[in-house]
Amino acid sequence: MLYEINEKALKLESEGKKIIKLNIGDPDLETPPEIIEAAYDAMKRGKTKYSSAFGEKSLREKLASIHKVYADNVVITPGSKWGIFSVMYLLLKDGGNVVIPTPYWTAYALTAKTLSVETRLVKTELDSSWKIDLETFESLIDRDTQMIILNNPNNPTSSVIDEKVLDGIVRIANDKGVPILSDEVYADISFVKTKRILEYGGDHILVTGFSKTFTMTGWRLGYVIANTELVEKLAKLNQITISNVPVFIQEAALKALELQGKLTEKIRQEYRKRAKLTCDVLSKSKLEFSEPSAPFYMFPRWRGLDSERFALSLLDDGVAVAPGTAFGDYREHFRISLTASRDDLRIALNKICEAVE
Amino acid sequence: MLYEINEKALKLESEGKKIIKLNIGDPDLETPPEIIEAAYDAMKRGKTKYSSAFGEKSLREKLASIHKVYADNVVITPGSKWGIFSVMYLLLKDGGNVVIPTPYWTAYALTAKTLSVETRLVKTELDSSWKIDLETFESLIDRDTQMIILNNPNNPTSSVIDEKVLDGIVRIANDKGVPILSDEVYADISFVKTKRILEYGGDHILVTGFSKTFTMTGWRLGYVIANTELVEKLAKLNQITISNVPVFIQEAALKALELQGKLTEKIRQEYRKRAKLTCDVLSKSKLEFSEPSAPFYMFPRWRGLDSERFALSLLDDGVAVAPGTAFGDYREHFRISLTASRDDLRIALNKICEAVE
Repeated sequence: MLYEINEKALKLESEGKKIIKLNIGDPDLETPPEIIEAAYDAMKRGKTKYSSAFGEKSLREKLASIHKVYADNVVITPGSKWGIFSVMYLLLKDGGNVVIPTPYWTAYALTAKTLSVETRLVKTELDSSWKIDLETFESLIDRDTQMIILNNPNNPTSSVIDEKVLDGIVRIANDKGVPILSDEVYADISFVKTKRILEYGGDHILVTGFSKTFTMTGWRLGYVIANTELVEKLAKLNQITISNVPVFIQEAALKALELQGKLTEKIRQEYRKRAKLTCDVLSKSKLEFSEPSAPFYMFPRWRGLDSERFALSLLDDGVAVAPGTAFGDYREHFRISLTASRDDLRIALNKICEAVE
Repeated sequence: MLYEINEKALKLESEGKKIIKLNIGDPDLETPPEIIEAAYDAMKRGKTKYSSAFGEKSLREKLASIHKVYADNVVITPGSKWGIFSVMYLLLKDGGNVVIPTPYWTAYALTAKTLSVETRLVKTELDSSWKIDLETFESLIDRDTQMIILNNPNNPTSSVIDEKVLDGIVRIANDKGVPILSDEVYADISFVKTKRILEYGGDHILVTGFSKTFTMTGWRLGYVIANTELVEKLAKLNQITISNVPVFIQEAALKALELQGKLTEKIRQEYRKRAKLTCDVLSKSKLEFSEPSAPFYMFPRWRGLDSERFALSLLDDGVAVAPGTAFGDYREHFRISLTASRDDLRIALNKICEAVE
């Protein structure tokens, strides 16, 4: 349905209609020019050859120092998505199951499905502030559970897992000997302190990337931090699949990290303003929602809504959003990506409010 | 062993020793500047966003017109390696087998292994000019055979499959209903006419890329041409793994195709000269070899040679080659990549000749 909405949006655009696209997580902001110049400079210096399947030493070392691990614990991937796929590919065996809180990014479940692995969902609700119930969570884990997947901050709710709840999840995971794959792609630009999986030690796995933090979605650059045994396996899988991430892209990433303080604070502030604007406008409507703790998304509810029909009909008003059904059993919700300028966002939000009158 | 040689070569280099690296297929030539400028220009035009998992329409259309298929038959991949992996991932089921002539690029077998699929090898020999024996080939195919993998021109022999033999292989494949995955990554710069798998029609699959034709190894750009059903599946797999190839890289590829006539003829001529030089020098030694019909490699034999020990000891003379065992049961062979300047190549070849005295 997510793809259907996107295809219809693109088709309407190609017919000359203006569509404010709040349906996908691709920022309207441009990749900072310093990053583009660093890539160009690297290309001209001949950084266009085959390279290590682990990633460039300099980038791995920089990331290791940021996350307080060793460079041997870091492997560079073409996007965090590849990190998630390849970790699941290597660790999940046919017939087992993975436990995932919802609402969730459906790629986790699609990947599990292609690997013939069962997905067990822990539903969270707006009414309890998207809190994961530890008892329900623990009850779903059995001897066939091979992995727990967390997305913190969460897409689509932009909520951050409460520190005590995360403590509980890690304790349960450790007790049962199940590794946690923690997708923290929104954590570096979170509005609130977000406890990271690596702070707990153990054999848990961090997956994240540069797409959101540095507005580099189309560059395809991410990384995995894990124990050295898994890192070796990931590099071996890279060798027979993607070879290596282009070195000029890795050099651009290194430049991005050098400028991180300056760049991400600017990006975070812009999303804070958009989030405030959205809360202000939506609070005047019948929509119920939680205030976002991180950039990119809001996931409001309208009682009785059929969000698939709603998203399709809203397209005719020139606004694209994603139906809640794309994130699990959330027919009454829809996801708004705050990935348009504040002017466009205001126009779109007013149309959304009119539509739910 | 290939990786061991490469690691030792890199270690010796880091210690300040000059190593002429003829062990991997990464050309010494630089990516043409027009291609780099096209990438930079695209980045500055904001081609840094998420895009289609099928690849850019303009690039698919251009490739379709070159290969005389429809754009719907083309999917863009991050390197031809990803094309090979993803086709195998989607078409091979646990428990079956794939049939592959040797010597061969070992990534095919490593991929089959990770998918729990048996690899059945059809050995070819220097003494019969690397000709595939059709009777042996047919005898290996049974009801569990799920795919035939060809590499034409071949790495490491740089031989091109004889047209009549290829006709025979395709006839057998069609009779048995087994798809051929044809890796033709060296075909566009072949020295001789190379019959392409797409000329036969049917549900066979072409995988190739830009790495070798345009000296773009580190850019990671390839494509698959297949029936639309498989192309749809490949795009769906892209969606949950690599998302899309960076659009600025695809725009660089489009520029490369525009300049193909000029660029590839230059590259081909350089490799012809290197191949001639290598044949001239080696013909004065005890080494036996076939003249290459395509760029990049030669695969000479020295009766009684232990090529692994030979490759390791040759490193101490400042020359890296790949042992024949990395390409199947070819202990007496080693692979020379013609990926150094003619001056360096001559020095290295003379050292090789001295070593086999």
